[in-house]
Amino acid sequence: MERHFERELEGLKEQLLLMGGRAEGIVLKAVEALRRLDTGLAQEILADDRAIDRMEIDIDERCVRLLALQQPMARDLRFITAALKINNDLERVGDHAVNIAGGVLRLAGQPLLKPLVDIPRMAHLAGGMLHEALDAFVRRDADGARRLCARDDEVDTLNHQVFRELVSFMVEDPTTITRAMELILVARNLERVADLATNVAEEVVFIAEARVIKHHAEEAGQDGDFGRS
Amino acid sequence: MERHFERELEGLKEQLLLMGGRAEGIVLKAVEALRRLDTGLAQEILADDRAIDRMEIDIDERCVRLLALQQPMARDLRFITAALKINNDLERVGDHAVNIAGGVLRLAGQPLLKPLVDIPRMAHLAGGMLHEALDAFVRRDADGARRLCARDDEVDTLNHQVFRELVSFMVEDPTTITRAMELILVARNLERVADLATNVAEEVVFIAEARVIKHHAEEAGQDGDFGRS
Repeated sequence: MERHFERELEGLKEQLLLMGGRAEGIVLKAVEALRRLDTGLAQEILADDRAIDRMEIDIDERCVRLLALQQPMARDLRFITAALKINNDLERVGDHAVNIAGGVLRLAGQPLLKPLVDIPRMAHLAGGMLHEALDAFVRRDADGARRLCARDDEVDTLNHQVFRELVSFMVEDPTTITRAMELILVARNLERVADLATNVAEEVVFIAEARVIKHHAEEAGQDGDFGRS
Repeated sequence: MERHFERELEGLKEQLLLMGGRAEGIVLKAVEALRRLDTGLAQEILADDRAIDRMEIDIDERCVRLLALQQPMARDLRFITAALKINNDLERVGDHAVNIAGGVLRLAGQPLLKPLVDIPRMAHLAGGMLHEALDAFVRRDADGARRLCARDDEVDTLNHQVFRELVSFMVEDPTTITRAMELILVARNLERVADLATNVAEEVVFIAEARVIKHHAEEAGQDGDFGRS
């Protein structure tokens, strides 16, 4: 029974890693479709997202089954409840990729406003954060996960930069408004992906240390921030 | 032991209802702050959101404790795992209210572009959906929850309408661009609140029927949609 449970946990971990890889992949594919304004690639995203959705349901059911049949305690219990949340976060990443793909379809046939620099950089950063969050998860590496949370600011800064630049395009030339809006929305979707990677990292700390770092609970009383969004 | 567990579940339910009421309240307050461009009210949102964040941590801990100590089965297990997710959804509602409050602070001191009609209507609809989703949760009313999911479309339609109207403002008069952008972002935050209410409703169906309706799993094979976001 004990070894069977270990194997089941190992299986759950592998499935979450696989889901993480797909979440990272779909985001990079969406931004590649944007860079090339490739509607075929954008259409693929929808099928990819469906596969991620199905995987979410499988993983959820696996977690509930493990809770029901094995009645795990302490560390394993924390692991499974965190897995439920990470699973949900990864599924939302897929939704953001679908949003970006929608933008590609609306932009197709028009010239891009400018060569994309910050947006691919944001995708690269957000994808890397997802990858590392899942790595930290496998290694139960709380320190690595904590460092990751700090990097979310880099993506936020790029998002603000993209926003300001595109607003200045719109002001100078109103014919760019709808195209600029689409790119602003793409950047916001990527910023949300980085947030979700941060959520995953917070769960890793929770698993490793049974300590909630969400909402700066570690720094109670600290002032918060109004984020643009 | 059995009756103690029942009491604990009842307590968890009440706490989630309280959290739901706060989530609904913070959204309505944020839109009221926008309508009046009241920065004092917008500032209150941040404190309200902190209270919601603390409540999320409490509810999470309560769920994990129940799972650890009571090792619930079947229906109760589904209830607790769904409570973990609903809790997370409600916390995200607070984040959207904070985003709207940020917009109020940036808009303050400038005249509103136009009297707000669709945005308060969206807030009213989204708040009502949250309220009803929590009602359905208490009554384990899967049919009510299912009807709710259909109403998400109304909010999406209003979001598109707001978007189109504000883009036309921007095109006609580029000096309105930053103000129009802020209102577009407010509408998008409200649309996300309605999505979160839909998530809660989906969890209610899961609790009541042990059936996953997320991702149209009930209608496998149906075509999906690229949403603007």
